[in-house]
Amino acid sequence: MKIDTVEAIPLAIPYRRPFGFASGRVTAADHVLVQITTDDGLVGHGEAPPRPYTYGETAASIVAAVRDLFAPVLVGADPFARERIRADLDRTVANNAAKGAIDVALWDLVGQACGQPVHVLLGHAADDVRAAHMIGLGTPEEMVADACEVRDDHGVDAFKIKVGRELGVDMAAVRALRAELGDAVELYADANRGWDADTAIVASRRLADHGVSMLEEPNPAADVLGRRRIVAASPIPVVGDESTITLGGVARSLLDGDTEAISVKVARTGFTDSAKIVGLCEGLGVTTVIGNQIDGMLSTVASVALGCGLRALARHPVEVTNYLLMADDVLADPPVIVDGRISARQEPGLGATIDPGKLAHYRLA
Amino acid sequence: MKIDTVEAIPLAIPYRRPFGFASGRVTAADHVLVQITTDDGLVGHGEAPPRPYTYGETAASIVAAVRDLFAPVLVGADPFARERIRADLDRTVANNAAKGAIDVALWDLVGQACGQPVHVLLGHAADDVRAAHMIGLGTPEEMVADACEVRDDHGVDAFKIKVGRELGVDMAAVRALRAELGDAVELYADANRGWDADTAIVASRRLADHGVSMLEEPNPAADVLGRRRIVAASPIPVVGDESTITLGGVARSLLDGDTEAISVKVARTGFTDSAKIVGLCEGLGVTTVIGNQIDGMLSTVASVALGCGLRALARHPVEVTNYLLMADDVLADPPVIVDGRISARQEPGLGATIDPGKLAHYRLA
Repeated sequence: MKIDTVEAIPLAIPYRRPFGFASGRVTAADHVLVQITTDDGLVGHGEAPPRPYTYGETAASIVAAVRDLFAPVLVGADPFARERIRADLDRTVANNAAKGAIDVALWDLVGQACGQPVHVLLGHAADDVRAAHMIGLGTPEEMVADACEVRDDHGVDAFKIKVGRELGVDMAAVRALRAELGDAVELYADANRGWDADTAIVASRRLADHGVSMLEEPNPAADVLGRRRIVAASPIPVVGDESTITLGGVARSLLDGDTEAISVKVARTGFTDSAKIVGLCEGLGVTTVIGNQIDGMLSTVASVALGCGLRALARHPVEVTNYLLMADDVLADPPVIVDGRISARQEPGLGATIDPGKLAHYRLA
Repeated sequence: MKIDTVEAIPLAIPYRRPFGFASGRVTAADHVLVQITTDDGLVGHGEAPPRPYTYGETAASIVAAVRDLFAPVLVGADPFARERIRADLDRTVANNAAKGAIDVALWDLVGQACGQPVHVLLGHAADDVRAAHMIGLGTPEEMVADACEVRDDHGVDAFKIKVGRELGVDMAAVRALRAELGDAVELYADANRGWDADTAIVASRRLADHGVSMLEEPNPAADVLGRRRIVAASPIPVVGDESTITLGGVARSLLDGDTEAISVKVARTGFTDSAKIVGLCEGLGVTTVIGNQIDGMLSTVASVALGCGLRALARHPVEVTNYLLMADDVLADPPVIVDGRISARQEPGLGATIDPGKLAHYRLA
């Protein structure tokens, strides 16, 4: 089996409502659909959400990188040969979302070729995972309403609260959420580098007092000593996300004392490097959780496959609800969250069929 | 697909000649063949070489562990579910060779079910690897004769020299080998914990002077400060092998400064944990090499599949020649080393067919 064509298709899919956080704001999904075909007629898909404020990539840069840099490397290659392909792609630095989407598409092909769902190929740790919902920045009332909607509609009982603003504002939201949602739900926080170290240290204690279990990216990781002071002082684990986006970067951050747990995202490390990161973290006794890159439906399906594949990930709630923000998408069958859980698909590969009518409607080129 | 039966079959296969090293000596292969069948008629195999002086396991203990502890966990399980199975097996500590053989047999089944060779499923980094030959302890003349035979018959140009005796005796052998084999061949050394730290430090410098590239297990890793002194003083990397036999153990040893490179063996960590160890070491920038547990032909085939699967392993010579010590084995088609290289098998799974006549002849029970 050889790769025949590699396409990067820019999409424009409206969100139901805008989504804000400390480091940016999105109003529509300008995702790029990566579509790889093989000489025996298989079609694999991956989805790249451009995040210029995190990875420096735009939809246009992803399309250009896939078309001009990566497609020439991929065409003619064996889609199973992800170790060789990864090395070839890594001759170009950065472009994490583009590389992640390609790796997801390759695994979609591999699963189809094997007649097995991706989560089964990865190790079949579980058939479903607990869903976590990310609550975007807003007033306490807006944030509570957001959480309650997802709780009531989908049974979700794990929430990541976006913080990183003036601490009093954030804590008002945290208090309101805990009061409304009760003590049984899992709450963790993500500051997206919005605080300085001193604020983060105070915040970590106040968050812990409200039973918030983890604090993600409290300050810029480039503030080296500040980040280490937070790690030393925080009563709850400091999670690395946008500061720990590669295998080597994860290792360095953990060894440098910048972080104590790791958020893993298929949207930047695909399945291949995500599995290596999980191996690294398992060996070091470091918690790994699956984060969400404001993923569309296809990346959501991929995240669930990753979570159900590897045991270290299946243990923790997986951030999957961002697709609910989208008014529509190109998948024929949207994800479904029931009783706070989301199941891996049982079809070969990702089990995610693209709706040709929707693709025609939402594609930009 | 569900596991139907799990058998542990003790074998007795004569070696062509005995094999000695600092921590033990073997005269015949009392390997245990693990044979797992599924409800849809597939048969997977793994081979456990008992190494009481390294893992505390004997053939009888491996048979007992597989039959009494592990088979009840495995029967009825999905062979793809290696993440769940690994957690279930790990409720019993140790028994590394038994667990490794089970994991190899599971991947043999997975590959067959997918219609893909194991090395392709692992990532298809290469189609063949360079072979390394392990030279057992003997007189300089015996060791040179051993190396020359493998060089002349199979084109091998990478050698691991067993050391760990009185230093003058070892160095005489190293000198003789370098003189005979020339400067172009790769030589590395394995003391199997035979030296104390002071001897090892002197040895590391003298070995480096002869272009020996690595030094494996110079002293007991339990001699904590001694091992660290060696790592600090040695001009060549200190490789962990029998002191680094689990994922967590590898992490601890690297962080503790006990070792600087890692020998990975399918005979103790199968494919699943070996891949995690490689992920860990890739992230930390640590070299991984595939070692040989005095493997029979089946484990040799598995080692080559691992080496061809993962890029970090495919870069280094793989220790594969110990099967040449065996007068026969249960495989229908023995491995072949040509021009110093050995190829991954292209058949689904391990591609290793058991000869029923040979199995009947060599099985003990």
